[in-house]
Amino acid sequence: MPFKLENAMDNLMDVFNYYATRDGDKFSLSRSELKGLLRGELCHYLEASRDPRMVDEIMCDLDKNMDGKVNFEEFVGLVTRLTVASCGYFDGYTPQISTCGNTPKISTCGYK
Amino acid sequence: MPFKLENAMDNLMDVFNYYATRDGDKFSLSRSELKGLLRGELCHYLEASRDPRMVDEIMCDLDKNMDGKVNFEEFVGLVTRLTVASCGYFDGYTPQISTCGNTPKISTCGYK
Repeated sequence: MPFKLENAMDNLMDVFNYYATRDGDKFSLSRSELKGLLRGELCHYLEASRDPRMVDEIMCDLDKNMDGKVNFEEFVGLVTRLTVASCGYFDGYTPQISTCGNTPKISTCGYK
Repeated sequence: MPFKLENAMDNLMDVFNYYATRDGDKFSLSRSELKGLLRGELCHYLEASRDPRMVDEIMCDLDKNMDGKVNFEEFVGLVTRLTVASCGYFDGYTPQISTCGNTPKISTCGYK
């Protein structure tokens, strides 16, 4: 399956880069950039929750190194967690990375 | 950028599924499955090292929960680390996740 991994990472970097460069630092998402990414790419995630604290909670949950920003590894970790939490492929699987208690089920994959 | 995240995760799951289902457990890669994935998808990684212990070292490094298998989150973590370590986009960036001392520079992305 040539190029599948490369294409996957290119797509993840395209999305990250699109939002991370808004404030000039291409290596991380600020709170407002993360909010833009969630609204632009994962809007069902926000729509599923009416809680205005959701962005802060996601930021807090993602920001492992507590610097107020979300780096590429943390961003990929979020998308991976959402995929495991929402994709039918993983029915019956116990995630190794615990998900936020507020994480709603959304679809981030085409697998059934 | 609609569908980019979905396409990325579908590609990652395609590759993971292709190798993980070889021994019947679709939720994890055994040592031999990991070896097949590294050879099939990340061959430059193995070619860059003549050390026959490389697969064991990668398995040990990836297998955070020490169950002798690599799950989807651990697999995505590997690809993410290789991307950050090898892609020109991240020049000047200090990874939050330390990479193995033996990790050679390989290209897993199309970014320059």
